[in-house]
Amino acid sequence: MKGMNTEQEIKALVFDAYGTLFNTNSVISMCNELFPDHGEVLSQIWRSKQLEYTWLRSLMERYGDFWKVTEDALIFACKSLNLQCGSSIHDRLMEGYLHLNPYPEVQQALNALSNYTLAILSNGSPRMLKAMVENAGLEGTFTHIISADEVCVYKPSPSVYRLALEKIGIDRSSIGFVSSNSFDVNGAKSFGFWTCWMNRLNNTWDELGFSPDTTVNGLNELANILSTQTYN
Amino acid sequence: MKGMNTEQEIKALVFDAYGTLFNTNSVISMCNELFPDHGEVLSQIWRSKQLEYTWLRSLMERYGDFWKVTEDALIFACKSLNLQCGSSIHDRLMEGYLHLNPYPEVQQALNALSNYTLAILSNGSPRMLKAMVENAGLEGTFTHIISADEVCVYKPSPSVYRLALEKIGIDRSSIGFVSSNSFDVNGAKSFGFWTCWMNRLNNTWDELGFSPDTTVNGLNELANILSTQTYN
Repeated sequence: MKGMNTEQEIKALVFDAYGTLFNTNSVISMCNELFPDHGEVLSQIWRSKQLEYTWLRSLMERYGDFWKVTEDALIFACKSLNLQCGSSIHDRLMEGYLHLNPYPEVQQALNALSNYTLAILSNGSPRMLKAMVENAGLEGTFTHIISADEVCVYKPSPSVYRLALEKIGIDRSSIGFVSSNSFDVNGAKSFGFWTCWMNRLNNTWDELGFSPDTTVNGLNELANILSTQTYN
Repeated sequence: MKGMNTEQEIKALVFDAYGTLFNTNSVISMCNELFPDHGEVLSQIWRSKQLEYTWLRSLMERYGDFWKVTEDALIFACKSLNLQCGSSIHDRLMEGYLHLNPYPEVQQALNALSNYTLAILSNGSPRMLKAMVENAGLEGTFTHIISADEVCVYKPSPSVYRLALEKIGIDRSSIGFVSSNSFDVNGAKSFGFWTCWMNRLNNTWDELGFSPDTTVNGLNELANILSTQTYN
């Protein structure tokens, strides 16, 4: 397989959380309910500003945790659309981030991968990740739940991917990294992980100088790809 | 005025280039001519990916100059819209970046500010900035044309704003920074410059923790604001 070295054997699988394991559609639905005429565009601006602010605060060296960044992005999105977002609506939308559902195939797919060390590596703050994993009943599934919060900088900074090495305690060539975000896969590949792009929505790959080692449409495809993997 | 210190006296004015002094509308028009049905969305995606890629490459520590980033963003934008963009169309659109017109009020407004040291501080590569300033007949206007290329990282990294100090050779509290990009004004304010947000298009301010010292709709307003400035 493209990108695999002779010496490379994957021992741990590290997953991005939002959009990769957990579906943000419930928050989008809530936006549609609360603002029937603007829900779609509100959730688009909210999500794109949430990402932008992680990059911009990282570059400005003015870290704020993912809860803060998500709140600020929501405030921007409402202002830009002239939507009144009082504290009760604001709080309801934010709470939505603590109750995201895993994609339907996730639990079964993770069971099929239980011979690997499984970990989450996410921008989410420790509190957000803990609540989300617990609410989804996935507490026992992951050996490590790792937050970018520990290095006060966001993906795709190499400092974040390095955290996975340190926490899991293995070499970077033994880590397979899975994300639905093309920028995140670029960052992980640049750092030296074997990478899988979870392209659920048939998105366009970002031109940042790297390619994924494999691309799947759902997590259920991964076990099969890894088991037929020849390390030649 | 909000944000001014007693000791503060502005001696140099530092301007962002794209969207602040120079109008990117000519490139948007070209997109519309070449792709009549998709010109608007093509130029939107192109511009937003161009910015994204500056942030992402900076965070990944995989610098590519602004010409490269602009080309990559164009490639992404065309792919995402399934537009055929052969080399002659690609080259025509890219060349557009070397021939941007200054906004109509810029030359006169800069003349009115000639008692200040005037500089450009831009993400643009030195070659791009030189060509653009020459093609606009503004060679003699700026004492310094400073490119982020020198530090191989993009705005809003403090390393870029620090370049202005080093090149102009004055204290940061003596620099007034002008940009149409709200993230850029946040970055400059975070670094310690007096800042002016050139909000030509009535955009929404980005929630990144800072506020501009003043906001204008066009460059012609700046001389007046600075002359009536009381340093109390």
